[in-house]
Amino acid sequence: MKEYMELAYKEALKAYKRKEVPIGAVIVKEGKVITKSYNQKEKKHQVTKHAEIIAIEKASKKLKNWRLENCELYTTLEPCPMCLGAIIQSRIKTVYYVIPADNSHLDFFESKNTNFVKLNLDNKYIDLLQKFFQLKRK
Amino acid sequence: MKEYMELAYKEALKAYKRKEVPIGAVIVKEGKVITKSYNQKEKKHQVTKHAEIIAIEKASKKLKNWRLENCELYTTLEPCPMCLGAIIQSRIKTVYYVIPADNSHLDFFESKNTNFVKLNLDNKYIDLLQKFFQLKRK
Repeated sequence: MKEYMELAYKEALKAYKRKEVPIGAVIVKEGKVITKSYNQKEKKHQVTKHAEIIAIEKASKKLKNWRLENCELYTTLEPCPMCLGAIIQSRIKTVYYVIPADNSHLDFFESKNTNFVKLNLDNKYIDLLQKFFQLKRK
Repeated sequence: MKEYMELAYKEALKAYKRKEVPIGAVIVKEGKVITKSYNQKEKKHQVTKHAEIIAIEKASKKLKNWRLENCELYTTLEPCPMCLGAIIQSRIKTVYYVIPADNSHLDFFESKNTNFVKLNLDNKYIDLLQKFFQLKRK
């Protein structure tokens, strides 16, 4: 699992370099990486272009199916309500994340079909996000 | 307001003809129709292609801005959590809807920025949706 999250981290770094909130996501199906993506909200002028939504859309396009059963989503940050809604509707099996959200919505979105698992990895994940917001405030 | 919802109904009819769950949406800014859209989940193989999300994406593309302040969204059905998340993040001012959701999430998504208004219009809105699900069950 750690290696997939590492790929998501590399995606988050791409967002950081493009002055987007640094969040990355990866979708894995049966041990195979299906899609990788990073947040592009500012570039695309779209609230919907969060890393998770882009990953879901790319995976559905690739699999020609909105049902992403047996897929796992790796995301550096716990998803927002919009992304949680898309995740649950797409029937993704398990969501792995590193950074908990300030305002968590997981309890509300509890679903029998989707499991949410927090991974305890090193500090570079949260450090990247904090560095972004510190620079932004300056 | 009724005339904008009528446009949304016509969009819902387009979805119905294409065997999609018949939901339509319209975005209006300062009295001007910016976008119209209908649910295309099955055709596009995307859980994200709800009428409301398509309307938001088209409006943001047109206005080159993810902020849809001073915009109103007309949708035939009370939005799902995914769409509510996108609506609130896009700062839409007011959402008008006709059919209440079986499982409403409005309380959870209460936002100081976005108002939600149920319009009491004639039965054709709910009739269209019920007709779709009756045919589907057959």
